[in-house]
Amino acid sequence: MNLTGQQLIGFSITSSSTLAFQAHSPTTGETLPTLFYQATASEVEHAVSLAQKAFLTFQSIDGKKRANFLHAIAQGILDLGDALLDRYVAETGLPSGRAEGERGRTINQIRAFAQSIEKDDWRRIQLDPAQPDRTPLPKPSLVSWENALGPVVVFGASNFPLAFSVAGGDTIAALAAGCPVLFKAHPAHPGTSEMVGRVIQQAAQEHALPEGVFSMLVDPSFATGSQLVQHPAICAVAFTGSFRGGKALFDLAANRPKPIPVYAEMGSINPVFLFPTTSNQENELFAQGYVDSLILGTGQFCTNPGVLFVSKDSPVIRLIQEKITVSHGGAMLTVDIQKRYERSIKDWKKHVALLGTGQRVDPERMVLPHVFLTDWTSYSQKKNLHEEVFGPSGLIVTVQDTSEFLEIAEHMEGQLTVSLHGTADQLASSLELIQLLKEKAGRLVFNGFPTGVEVSPAMVHGGPFPATTDSRSTSVGLNSIYRFTRPVCFQNAPMLCLPTFIQLKLQNT
Amino acid sequence: MNLTGQQLIGFSITSSSTLAFQAHSPTTGETLPTLFYQATASEVEHAVSLAQKAFLTFQSIDGKKRANFLHAIAQGILDLGDALLDRYVAETGLPSGRAEGERGRTINQIRAFAQSIEKDDWRRIQLDPAQPDRTPLPKPSLVSWENALGPVVVFGASNFPLAFSVAGGDTIAALAAGCPVLFKAHPAHPGTSEMVGRVIQQAAQEHALPEGVFSMLVDPSFATGSQLVQHPAICAVAFTGSFRGGKALFDLAANRPKPIPVYAEMGSINPVFLFPTTSNQENELFAQGYVDSLILGTGQFCTNPGVLFVSKDSPVIRLIQEKITVSHGGAMLTVDIQKRYERSIKDWKKHVALLGTGQRVDPERMVLPHVFLTDWTSYSQKKNLHEEVFGPSGLIVTVQDTSEFLEIAEHMEGQLTVSLHGTADQLASSLELIQLLKEKAGRLVFNGFPTGVEVSPAMVHGGPFPATTDSRSTSVGLNSIYRFTRPVCFQNAPMLCLPTFIQLKLQNT
Repeated sequence: MNLTGQQLIGFSITSSSTLAFQAHSPTTGETLPTLFYQATASEVEHAVSLAQKAFLTFQSIDGKKRANFLHAIAQGILDLGDALLDRYVAETGLPSGRAEGERGRTINQIRAFAQSIEKDDWRRIQLDPAQPDRTPLPKPSLVSWENALGPVVVFGASNFPLAFSVAGGDTIAALAAGCPVLFKAHPAHPGTSEMVGRVIQQAAQEHALPEGVFSMLVDPSFATGSQLVQHPAICAVAFTGSFRGGKALFDLAANRPKPIPVYAEMGSINPVFLFPTTSNQENELFAQGYVDSLILGTGQFCTNPGVLFVSKDSPVIRLIQEKITVSHGGAMLTVDIQKRYERSIKDWKKHVALLGTGQRVDPERMVLPHVFLTDWTSYSQKKNLHEEVFGPSGLIVTVQDTSEFLEIAEHMEGQLTVSLHGTADQLASSLELIQLLKEKAGRLVFNGFPTGVEVSPAMVHGGPFPATTDSRSTSVGLNSIYRFTRPVCFQNAPMLCLPTFIQLKLQNT
Repeated sequence: MNLTGQQLIGFSITSSSTLAFQAHSPTTGETLPTLFYQATASEVEHAVSLAQKAFLTFQSIDGKKRANFLHAIAQGILDLGDALLDRYVAETGLPSGRAEGERGRTINQIRAFAQSIEKDDWRRIQLDPAQPDRTPLPKPSLVSWENALGPVVVFGASNFPLAFSVAGGDTIAALAAGCPVLFKAHPAHPGTSEMVGRVIQQAAQEHALPEGVFSMLVDPSFATGSQLVQHPAICAVAFTGSFRGGKALFDLAANRPKPIPVYAEMGSINPVFLFPTTSNQENELFAQGYVDSLILGTGQFCTNPGVLFVSKDSPVIRLIQEKITVSHGGAMLTVDIQKRYERSIKDWKKHVALLGTGQRVDPERMVLPHVFLTDWTSYSQKKNLHEEVFGPSGLIVTVQDTSEFLEIAEHMEGQLTVSLHGTADQLASSLELIQLLKEKAGRLVFNGFPTGVEVSPAMVHGGPFPATTDSRSTSVGLNSIYRFTRPVCFQNAPMLCLPTFIQLKLQNT
């Protein structure tokens, strides 16, 4: 596929702007081929108006047809072959194994959604039959189901160029629900985005879907995103990224004349609690697991375990120090992200003791893993240490006694995950702590680390603010479809006025 | 029960304010006995702190125990007997038949919730078993369920002093979910509120629930409501009332440092569409049904059919005129509501033709039903006619041809309900219109009128903004519980660390 650097608007590939940018290799700093043009306001307007026109048709087509569309997207991504993986690696600096793994996860996710909408069980159909003889008043027949919200805006995340980007969970959940998607590509991987975007565009065309079910807009500035979120035809927004970015979108959306929901997953520091250990093997396993989770993908995961609470005399502290000292850094996704990481590290060094630093490989383009050390008293007073550092940086916070975990949990902000390590006995006698932590997180991990978000029905990738702007939802797993639906009820409707899937259900009951 | 006029804070009945007010009879204007004291800021703070402390225990108690608490509330309300109905009638001016009917509906609603939480099916439990042998990585066990959000604020509505007030759908759904409720009583029926509030207070105490699962605060000003909504411990807000009130709460909540969801049901004009009729009997039935729905409860329903779209030559126009002219007015809930209604009518008379007015019974305290008449061209230009007039006022908007319904639907704002009247053939050939209307409403009523909201699983009492601030929810029916929950996931949790209802479920699978 030859990259064009243009906007994907409905079935067109087009550009009217003269402003353009290029992607960079995070490992070499090199400029990568292809000029990417910046979307203009009228291109954005045109894409939204196509989405608006496409909506009524798209949301009412048969689930099987929409499933086939999703299957074609999955196949189309696979058919891009190594070209996609090569561009992914070039744009992100992530290793090719990760690219392949993430592609697999993305494909599985798309297929899982396709499967789940082939039948209409996901629609939560409820049928209340009429009772014409009821006194004092007859009961009408009522039927309700989950219906697509309307056109939605999805923002690509920098750190998952496939799984949380163009054909990632947000886009696929919205399309599965029947919502046209206006996709704002992340400027860190515009080539990867175009390749996948054109697969979706082509699949829509080949499946004779109305033009406008998908458009992709490229813009390194905030203008396109802000225009999209404020457009009256837009019904919801999905975003994965920084607190600053997510909160800005939330505020924009809440202050519209007609407010709309924003599902911003804004990351978290994913606290890990370790109860006292008793064997060297346990300590070894824990320390290795923690460091592996911390430096995985150069620490660029929403579920990166940023803070570890542990007894001040725990042997794992020294083991983590040993392991971090021999660990290697990696490239970060963009120069901006790298600079932010380095600024944070510089700042932290002023406020907290450094326990250890990883090994330098390439002084220009790699960042180093860092682990800092402090105690609960001083941590609780320094609010700047409670903020996420995006990258391979961890903070160990020591307590005099693990009974202090309760106090820590009480003061904790909303998180995507919290992890607890302990024996069955230790955990079973910490039910009050577990109860409290549950109120602060979307997911509680027992004797494991938070990275590696399973895509499965019971997964909750969400959590109380500031982890997300809407704790009632998950952005991973099949339940993420309900971010883009609302219930609709028909009362005493003649059979022919009901959607086909309700007619079928009524005929079978 | 002797009314005290005090705040119900946890298990106390207390008041420290010197500011007080009295309720008035809307029919006679008389001041009703009992001084009601205005909650102070420290009383509000105390109530919230009790709720916060009660939350962890309350949300984790057995569903059956919470169900028994709800059953006791229902029984307690019945046990208040005629004293409750008498005070209801005195404070609202509504007839005693309505009081009794609404009490029945309220009791049924409470019992339906009690029944639904006796088992834990409502929690949407999802179990993904572990696959320890999966390659390349083992799959962890995951379990997720819907968990209570935390303490919530519920505002009583003026127009349903039982069903949307102290023990109304919002309070009961929140308690059923496991959320402590801070109830802000509506100043139009403080006596009715205290009676029901004390029933809840007593039931909580008798069922040994933690103090703070319910508190009721009285305040005719905005201070208490605004303090509650902005309190950091509050996790959600439910409100039924005016657009102005609901939107103000939404804005307050969205601008908190930690934003929270607001479920404001703000009313709607509930458009009715009539296709050409062919028989006198049909016309007669429709006109009578429309006028009955319009003047029911002196037009003080959220689902009052405020606007009727009909062919300019339809015989129902004359029939409605006849029927409205012999209709009777009624008292409105408060002097303020009455004044607002009269101001709106006065204003409308300047902008649109009056088709008919009901008969005057008591010039002082009764308002008259009104029906106005205009055409689509002029309606579409006068935006002030699109706003809800709370009371028995309807507007007939004529079209040249019912094919114009499509254009009307396109320009329509979000509604709680839309009603369509036509033959099976007329409706079946209007699928595009139905599709479009579905996008604008929570409920589509076929050949019926929107008043009379059935409390049943498939009911959706909600709809797109400005009908509500959250179209993804319903405020009537069992699904209204999900306004007060969020999903939580436990990964690889030891059996003893899981909530009891999950342990039971795992033992049975």
